[in-house]
Amino acid sequence: MRFSKLLIPTAKEAPSDAVLPSHIYLLRAGFIQSVGAGLYNFLPLGKRSLDRVRQVVKEELDAAGCQEVDLAFVTPAELWRESGRFEKYGKELLRFTDRKENEFVLGPTHEEMMVNLVRQSVKSYKQLPLHLYQIKTKFRDEIRPRFGLMRGREFLMEDGYSFHKDEEDMKREFDHMEATYSRIFTRLGLDFRVVEADSGAIGGSGSKEFMVLADSGEDTIVVCEGCDYGANIEAAVRAPKAAPEYEEGEEPEMTAGEFQTPGIKTIDDLADFFHIDPHHLIKAVAKKALYDEGREAIVLFFLRGNDELEETKACNAVGANELVDVSEEELRAAGLTPGFMGFINLPDGIRYVIDKELKGETPMIMGANKEDYHLIGVTVPDYGDFFADLVAVQEGDRCAKCGGRLHYTKGIEVGHIFQLGTRYSEPLNATFLDENGKRRPFVMGTYGIGVSRLLAAIIEQHHDDRGCIWTRESAPFDVEIIVSNIANDAEREAAEELYRLLKSKGVEVLLDDRKERFGFKMKDFELIGIPLGIVVGKKLADGQVELIVRDGLERIDLPLERVADEVLERV
Amino acid sequence: MRFSKLLIPTAKEAPSDAVLPSHIYLLRAGFIQSVGAGLYNFLPLGKRSLDRVRQVVKEELDAAGCQEVDLAFVTPAELWRESGRFEKYGKELLRFTDRKENEFVLGPTHEEMMVNLVRQSVKSYKQLPLHLYQIKTKFRDEIRPRFGLMRGREFLMEDGYSFHKDEEDMKREFDHMEATYSRIFTRLGLDFRVVEADSGAIGGSGSKEFMVLADSGEDTIVVCEGCDYGANIEAAVRAPKAAPEYEEGEEPEMTAGEFQTPGIKTIDDLADFFHIDPHHLIKAVAKKALYDEGREAIVLFFLRGNDELEETKACNAVGANELVDVSEEELRAAGLTPGFMGFINLPDGIRYVIDKELKGETPMIMGANKEDYHLIGVTVPDYGDFFADLVAVQEGDRCAKCGGRLHYTKGIEVGHIFQLGTRYSEPLNATFLDENGKRRPFVMGTYGIGVSRLLAAIIEQHHDDRGCIWTRESAPFDVEIIVSNIANDAEREAAEELYRLLKSKGVEVLLDDRKERFGFKMKDFELIGIPLGIVVGKKLADGQVELIVRDGLERIDLPLERVADEVLERV
Repeated sequence: MRFSKLLIPTAKEAPSDAVLPSHIYLLRAGFIQSVGAGLYNFLPLGKRSLDRVRQVVKEELDAAGCQEVDLAFVTPAELWRESGRFEKYGKELLRFTDRKENEFVLGPTHEEMMVNLVRQSVKSYKQLPLHLYQIKTKFRDEIRPRFGLMRGREFLMEDGYSFHKDEEDMKREFDHMEATYSRIFTRLGLDFRVVEADSGAIGGSGSKEFMVLADSGEDTIVVCEGCDYGANIEAAVRAPKAAPEYEEGEEPEMTAGEFQTPGIKTIDDLADFFHIDPHHLIKAVAKKALYDEGREAIVLFFLRGNDELEETKACNAVGANELVDVSEEELRAAGLTPGFMGFINLPDGIRYVIDKELKGETPMIMGANKEDYHLIGVTVPDYGDFFADLVAVQEGDRCAKCGGRLHYTKGIEVGHIFQLGTRYSEPLNATFLDENGKRRPFVMGTYGIGVSRLLAAIIEQHHDDRGCIWTRESAPFDVEIIVSNIANDAEREAAEELYRLLKSKGVEVLLDDRKERFGFKMKDFELIGIPLGIVVGKKLADGQVELIVRDGLERIDLPLERVADEVLERV
Repeated sequence: MRFSKLLIPTAKEAPSDAVLPSHIYLLRAGFIQSVGAGLYNFLPLGKRSLDRVRQVVKEELDAAGCQEVDLAFVTPAELWRESGRFEKYGKELLRFTDRKENEFVLGPTHEEMMVNLVRQSVKSYKQLPLHLYQIKTKFRDEIRPRFGLMRGREFLMEDGYSFHKDEEDMKREFDHMEATYSRIFTRLGLDFRVVEADSGAIGGSGSKEFMVLADSGEDTIVVCEGCDYGANIEAAVRAPKAAPEYEEGEEPEMTAGEFQTPGIKTIDDLADFFHIDPHHLIKAVAKKALYDEGREAIVLFFLRGNDELEETKACNAVGANELVDVSEEELRAAGLTPGFMGFINLPDGIRYVIDKELKGETPMIMGANKEDYHLIGVTVPDYGDFFADLVAVQEGDRCAKCGGRLHYTKGIEVGHIFQLGTRYSEPLNATFLDENGKRRPFVMGTYGIGVSRLLAAIIEQHHDDRGCIWTRESAPFDVEIIVSNIANDAEREAAEELYRLLKSKGVEVLLDDRKERFGFKMKDFELIGIPLGIVVGKKLADGQVELIVRDGLERIDLPLERVADEVLERV
């Protein structure tokens, strides 16, 4: 296509609220245009990139045996009532009534709709497994839409739902989708990690996120330097922390008993007081757990003195909706002794959870539930149902898989796959007849890719200080031909011929035929970020043109008649 | 793809509210599924047909120089206030507020959004003309959604908007789009007419509709038997009605004057009374015209005795929002004499319009505005600003273009193109700098295709009593291979090989590999309506298979090794 005819409103500046490179460059290069908080128009270039990314997603899903459907965006609220999510979903769910006062939602996700579709059309195990997906606009009324396409309110998403006769088959599909999604992100040229994710709140037995590694990512992920292990911080696990290395005979020894520790409340003070490594101290973290219907309870979490509580894990451990801070007054009112709390001799009715790495540990020191006293020489029991993983993995911890060093990195979540089980099929009464004629609920998996967010993720990972650097399968065009001086007949004609030749070979070509200065056109080329550029300029007198590789801005002089083949080899 | 793996829930019955063939068959053949009034899911077959139709639309628009964009579906209400449509649009416009109480609409059409896009990015006449389009879900809160995809609430639409420096260029694009849309509907195998449409309410200088001819169409259109003239009934024009043919000396003659006509109020009575053809009578039709802000006025429309008033034309002639009936009491209160009204000696302040075919006609008879009196020998003036086209074209009237006979037919509107002018660019202050550096509003055209409605229109025109008959470019697959007996190894293997062969040639093939009876599979083939079927059955023993052409159900025996070539020739 011709630059002179296309609407590509490039700009020197981006609005001041744009801080991320992808937000700035997608606006400046004329890919998108803002129309309100978290709402964007895709201009011709943006639409082309979006379509190409969408095509990669579709090709891989179709090849993986998934079937594309297209569900109504406007969704009857009654389905959301059946699943119990109409009330629970919160304000991100946009609710409205039509002219006849029927209630609807703008589907932010389509579990209910898809279960409804399948319960009407699938009756027998013979029709299983079944994986349906769509690639469609979604709306989530985000409280703080920001970062351009990264966290918009209206966005394009691929959402897939699979239906199975049992857990085993669902897990097979889950692994199959991990491989399929990985192929998609690989084709799009992304450096990403598949990480373990928290699956507490939605339930089910496992979930994984696909994280594009980028400094600007909103998610902290833990990755191993030694193997492919990766996890969202909320779900990360580690090898048990090793005890300090003591010289022979230097190991701490204590007789079990109470010990007066006047005013010694913090872990640091306690370590100083006893001249002991915090490895042998037990820290108590008190929280208030909130449950449905306004119920609440104080819960104590015990972990090693040199560990920190991971709140999502803690929340899941007690099955709460949320954990909030609790005041010293509230603790005292419940009969607790802040600064001196332990799990022995607790007041009646106080629930507690102990980090599983403490199981059987000895000798330990912890609060005696008595002002100014600690218990020393404590042996943590090695049985009981009060253990759970509670610790926030820290940089430098060791990998549970390979023992390698774990470290933090930032990621952009572009995909999430989920072992859903019967969370939706049961309340919506979606069942099939199994081999024995018995009615059973579908076992489900659910899968999602943020298609429009991918454009942002690609640019976060692929840009320089001049603009976008699109990857091969996400670029709006494969190659851009820049006519240095459009008034020069030879240059213009050579460029036009090259343009026709490349198009005839199926290459997507943008011809910059504008009557603008060469420097201006080059700036636009660098800003827009098409992977290859061909400059038809002064060197044409010697039969030469210049091929520019956008990533790195390498420039290669080539004879005019060679350049088409060179381009074909690279796209 | 394999029938056994695809979700194609065919059914013997359709819900009782489905009356049109397209509604019944699209549901029964598993293309769509209802989720609420006017809301549908597209199942895998429906999605495939929708994608193919969409692709035809996209290819032709891109080839015509239009650029695809993708605008936010959720649209800030402030843009609709700027254009004045927020209040005017009525209840079809779904309005809602987000969590921060900002007002939004679900875009049923995107003039405002597109003008907003362009006013921000186009500054100079050098960037014109520009034609942007999108193919995206729309929502209109129809009061009576019905007929399946024909009149849904959520639907897929192509909406295009062109921007020009002047009227002339806009009209060039309008003609270009008429040709482009015609190519689209021709490729889709539709028998359609481009008809003149009413453009009064929206303004602008002209509009045309694309009507698929079908008995079930909701629109009445007037077409000429002799040429390609066609028009929506509201916009249809004709050659002036010829006077009755009189023998020499038999022409009516009258001296101008009042004539007593006691109790003779109707045209029929008047014709009998005077022994004259109604061609020489003038009929008065009284209406009440409603305007903005509650203003109203009685208006009289005068037309020939044997013509009928076309209300849309009449409404446009007086620039009213609506015409309603007026009672005899109201007429008398305004000083009028029902049954004896004419345009001479009217009471002060009564507005009237005379049909333009009456201009200069003589001798005529009409009411004298006096009880029991008519004027005879009237000569209608042949000048003045009170003439307009008011008549409803009738079957048998003559074509204004060729003199051929006009008749009525029914059509389904699948496209509409519009010369919009500055209706939106002016209120939204969307301007560009012209060649002389002068700021001017964009002159616009607007264009639309009902993409999901096209699926219904295709089936309305292409079905038989067994099911759908898809056209070549709208079919979900090109060909279906039916294995007569899947337990027969030879049949199954031959079918699988044919399946692979056709797929390798780029043919979209559905293989019915289900363990079902042959008759059951044939019924599904006929219901689904893929253009070609290949039955691999008993004749395979003689090296033969059967090719079935769905349209007409012609059956052709062919040698197995010939069938792939035969299919390739036909697709």
